[in-house]
Amino acid sequence: MVRNYCVRTDLALEEKERFESDNAEISGVVLEEEYDDENEIRTTRVVIETENGAKAMGKPTGTYLTVETPNLAAPDDESQKVIAGELCRRIRELTEKNRPEKKKFSVLVVGLGNRAVTPDALGPCVADHINATRHIVKEYGKYAVGMEEADLVSTIVPGVMGQTGMETAEIVRGIVNETKPDLVIAVDALAARSSRRLNRTVQIADTGIHPGSGVGNHRLGMTEKSLGVPVIGIGVPTVVDAATIVNDTMENLIRAMESSDTLKGAGEALRFCSPEEKYEFVKELIAPNLNGMFVAPKDADEMIHQISHTISEALNMLFSGSGMSG
Amino acid sequence: MVRNYCVRTDLALEEKERFESDNAEISGVVLEEEYDDENEIRTTRVVIETENGAKAMGKPTGTYLTVETPNLAAPDDESQKVIAGELCRRIRELTEKNRPEKKKFSVLVVGLGNRAVTPDALGPCVADHINATRHIVKEYGKYAVGMEEADLVSTIVPGVMGQTGMETAEIVRGIVNETKPDLVIAVDALAARSSRRLNRTVQIADTGIHPGSGVGNHRLGMTEKSLGVPVIGIGVPTVVDAATIVNDTMENLIRAMESSDTLKGAGEALRFCSPEEKYEFVKELIAPNLNGMFVAPKDADEMIHQISHTISEALNMLFSGSGMSG
Amino acid sequence: MVRNYCVRTDLALEEKERFESDNAEISGVVLEEEYDDENEIRTTRVVIETENGAKAMGKPTGTYLTVETPNLAAPDDESQKVIAGELCRRIRELTEKNRPEKKKFSVLVVGLGNRAVTPDALGPCVADHINATRHIVKEYGKYAVGMEEADLVSTIVPGVMGQTGMETAEIVRGIVNETKPDLVIAVDALAARSSRRLNRTVQIADTGIHPGSGVGNHRLGMTEKSLGVPVIGIGVPTVVDAATIVNDTMENLIRAMESSDTLKGAGEALRFCSPEEKYEFVKELIAPNLNGMFVAPKDADEMIHQISHTISEALNMLFSGSGMSG
Amino acid sequence: MVRNYCVRTDLALEEKERFESDNAEISGVVLEEEYDDENEIRTTRVVIETENGAKAMGKPTGTYLTVETPNLAAPDDESQKVIAGELCRRIRELTEKNRPEKKKFSVLVVGLGNRAVTPDALGPCVADHINATRHIVKEYGKYAVGMEEADLVSTIVPGVMGQTGMETAEIVRGIVNETKPDLVIAVDALAARSSRRLNRTVQIADTGIHPGSGVGNHRLGMTEKSLGVPVIGIGVPTVVDAATIVNDTMENLIRAMESSDTLKGAGEALRFCSPEEKYEFVKELIAPNLNGMFVAPKDADEMIHQISHTISEALNMLFSGSGMSG
Repeated sequence: MVRNYCVRTDLALEEKERFESDNAEISGVVLEEEYDDENEIRTTRVVIETENGAKAMGKPTGTYLTVETPNLAAPDDESQKVIAGELCRRIRELTEKNRPEKKKFSVLVVGLGNRAVTPDALGPCVADHINATRHIVKEYGKYAVGMEEADLVSTIVPGVMGQTGMETAEIVRGIVNETKPDLVIAVDALAARSSRRLNRTVQIADTGIHPGSGVGNHRLGMTEKSLGVPVIGIGVPTVVDAATIVNDTMENLIRAMESSDTLKGAGEALRFCSPEEKYEFVKELIAPNLNGMFVAPKDADEMIHQISHTISEALNMLFSGSGMSG
Repeated sequence: MVRNYCVRTDLALEEKERFESDNAEISGVVLEEEYDDENEIRTTRVVIETENGAKAMGKPTGTYLTVETPNLAAPDDESQKVIAGELCRRIRELTEKNRPEKKKFSVLVVGLGNRAVTPDALGPCVADHINATRHIVKEYGKYAVGMEEADLVSTIVPGVMGQTGMETAEIVRGIVNETKPDLVIAVDALAARSSRRLNRTVQIADTGIHPGSGVGNHRLGMTEKSLGVPVIGIGVPTVVDAATIVNDTMENLIRAMESSDTLKGAGEALRFCSPEEKYEFVKELIAPNLNGMFVAPKDADEMIHQISHTISEALNMLFSGSGMSG
Repeated sequence: MVRNYCVRTDLALEEKERFESDNAEISGVVLEEEYDDENEIRTTRVVIETENGAKAMGKPTGTYLTVETPNLAAPDDESQKVIAGELCRRIRELTEKNRPEKKKFSVLVVGLGNRAVTPDALGPCVADHINATRHIVKEYGKYAVGMEEADLVSTIVPGVMGQTGMETAEIVRGIVNETKPDLVIAVDALAARSSRRLNRTVQIADTGIHPGSGVGNHRLGMTEKSLGVPVIGIGVPTVVDAATIVNDTMENLIRAMESSDTLKGAGEALRFCSPEEKYEFVKELIAPNLNGMFVAPKDADEMIHQISHTISEALNMLFSGSGMSG
Repeated sequence: MVRNYCVRTDLALEEKERFESDNAEISGVVLEEEYDDENEIRTTRVVIETENGAKAMGKPTGTYLTVETPNLAAPDDESQKVIAGELCRRIRELTEKNRPEKKKFSVLVVGLGNRAVTPDALGPCVADHINATRHIVKEYGKYAVGMEEADLVSTIVPGVMGQTGMETAEIVRGIVNETKPDLVIAVDALAARSSRRLNRTVQIADTGIHPGSGVGNHRLGMTEKSLGVPVIGIGVPTVVDAATIVNDTMENLIRAMESSDTLKGAGEALRFCSPEEKYEFVKELIAPNLNGMFVAPKDADEMIHQISHTISEALNMLFSGSGMSG
């Protein structure tokens, strides 16, 4: 498949689809899907159970929940409440097993990305709207915050390496070692495989954050292994890699040729030629000056604003325990 | 030419090149070029003299100066001083003929674009760094500002229609009618034809601002005709239209096919087929969800910051008269 | 009264209280008060009916509604909903009489103040959260926005004279002349007489905006007379003038002296001496370097964020007609 | 002295002046002063040598350099270059002794304060303009950055406790433990004793950052003791504590009374009464609602912008070694 060598996606769901497009089964990877008709919310659970599955998927073993809805960036309070509730439930699903018996549960929310680049500002924007309570609870006790089941919440926006001169993972590890949270929740902007998915998908994974293909490319991952505490990664695809668009185009062109009488031959010729030959084309197709470029919607600012607000609502619900019933 | 129907560029220079690529001559369009070897600054002057030329170029008659340099976004004070000096000279070249005899010359600098979308923030960032003097001169006289030849400078960041609910041109016309400047200088982010030109080119035109293909798409132009005073447009390509990338890809693919033994046939088949047939492909190639998408570099924030600072330096020089000697 | 000559307040309510403190009655000025016990919201209506009253109050004739509540800046969604509802009702009270028969009612919301100075950013923050609909309704008709009774809403953040070189009133007048709204609603940060009132009071007046004592001191007012359309002014005291604090201190000191046996004499001496003599002290008391200084709370950022959000909610309710029932 | 109990200042210089005002000598505290006539730059060195001196001054033993100039916030490139050069020299004076023999010297610049509160944004603004090189040098070696003597520079903007839920000192200590810099330079906005000093004074101290009286009140200090590496504190007074203004007023009033025939008695009475009695007044004078309030100039935004730019220039010079000759 052409896609193999040149396309990266941060979404486990898209990796899975890749195989489905070839009607292939992957041993060690389980996929379940739920659809909330009324609210147009599709939730998919991809569980990578074995190392074998991990290898095939190019992602570590663990659970990847994907919540998809056309209304994710819609400026409509009602839908946003519903979506926030759904996200809260799904995040709890992955955090519950990490929740210790002891009364006080402490969480560090990390807002990854570059505040100054619109589609990469998702993480910082979410962190901005999280109600930090750790300092209050530490000083006045739980009752100060008004709810007994409230967690100790802290947040950090570490910035990006180009600004700080430090690996983001170094900064976060240092803070984790010093403040000893029970759990880290890292929020980041992702790169999608398909532009159709931009700003309408949230991925929640118990495998943490891995060096990805978003705007801010973290060279080191943030995982339980590297930070010493469980890490939940929450990601929203806000950009598509420019190279991906190019690749799609070629895929489309091949199909276009097949459907054309004049050029059927050309299309078939392409179909029949070897991956190596195709690879040669793609190498030439992807202009070198496309590297380090991203594709984003022109109204990215409003979308990011809306989505980050909804995710922070979901997290504030989770931490305050008020989403319990939901 | 494939490009005709699907590619837009805001740069007169690129329109001109289009024809050169076909070794065509355009009557009524004159092109001159200077190259400053030491500073790697190429300055091109495209003058559209006749309506005929305007039609062929798809741009109104007037003078379009393009200053190109690889150092435009380089964080190096020395190069920036040189570039600002060159820009100041070029802008003066177009403003001089509008400069009236009367002592006081007043200019309104308009920072177009959406401050919240990184590659579209160029105009607002430039306006932020302009030294507004109109209110001081009006109250204390020229000597207050320290230079007799100083202009009366005012600036406005009108925002974008999605935020204000008003056409940017309406806002600017209202302010012009009220404050009666002798000249408007409008700064805007543009869309380039080629990603190679991003953040290394400044276009200065005495034809004002026309509905373009940048991130912020102004539906109405800002010209002497619509505002009632001469309008100098200063633009920097900071994005490429996603559709452009797709189009380039097809061009590349066709070339790639020709250079392939296996697929020479296909490539030639494409070459020989009619523009109409090609148009059909392109329609299919350009995924509908690419509309309203832009392509930008991942470090757009630093580039915009640097370039806007240099352009504002050039304008402050011009207005204070200190760039005269330069 | 010491206060007469050295203290400025933008709140009609405080001017009125001044007199009450002397148990004085002002002919031509009517004051009514309502208190919502449950929600701790006090609403006061000061109506200046005669020129005589206007002279005494130092404010133009008109209606000044003041909504006071300790929860104005409280980060609590429930209280905010209640307050937004109350504000929506009160603003409608003053806008109704300006609402013409014709179906389409158009409003321009002006966010006054300097975005870069925290306690002066209230106006720009409110404008940022207003749903502009004018461009949509103009293009697709009312039904596009989803409600038939929806108004045509536009917004502008004109900036401050130090940045633009233009009087804010010039900018707004130009835009009003060009876009012809039926009504202007101008939102601004005010200076309070008493620090107790900061960030817990909203004044809504049908007399527009007058050169005030806030952070951004507009030299020209924005009124029906200067703009040609009715102007509703919405203001929140976010700062106290440094000189005010000094004046309060002296008042306090005099009281303190009276309550002291040792210094009773001194206190009485002060009481008995003439206003002129007191004025001499105050002149010396107010260090010249206090001019151009403001006093604000250290957590101004969170308060401004919260309050601007609540006011924009009230306005969006009003414009969408959804606040009708409320 | 009235001041003793109610006034806090972050400036060692002002503590010293306090004593001078009583013509007192403090053993263990040495004060030297230089004045650069041409550039109007006064540099004062306060060295607290003994624990005794530290007790008297209420500040830890160490060296406090104060650079004062009326042009610190002046938008004039020439003066700014001169001031940056002077600051660079003075900072080097305190950093030199910490500079180890080994080739690579690494520095972490910490931008303290709340980006969202104008006069507290100084630290974050300085950090924004520091050229971070650590990641480049670590990956490509010193030559990548172009200068052999270049330091490894990293920067962090930790935010404030109200946002993060963590003590700033916890965050910084964690990052220091993880990235092991040789030196920390912490930049912070301070509170001055006198409004005359606002935005014209820079204090550089080798004693680090101590719980202060600025806008952002750090409850824990950042010192060599708490961080494990030497800490240079760079501070600029950008606010005055509201209580300070009140105290000044009383001082002025007392003087004013003395110069008044009518009230000479009162003034003298005050002079003669005991500190305890005076303390009683001040307690009443300082309205409780003044706590947590600051006094700042209305054009704080431009001043902070200018000053932070100059300080970052000084640091970039220092780190690149280019300020050596200067």
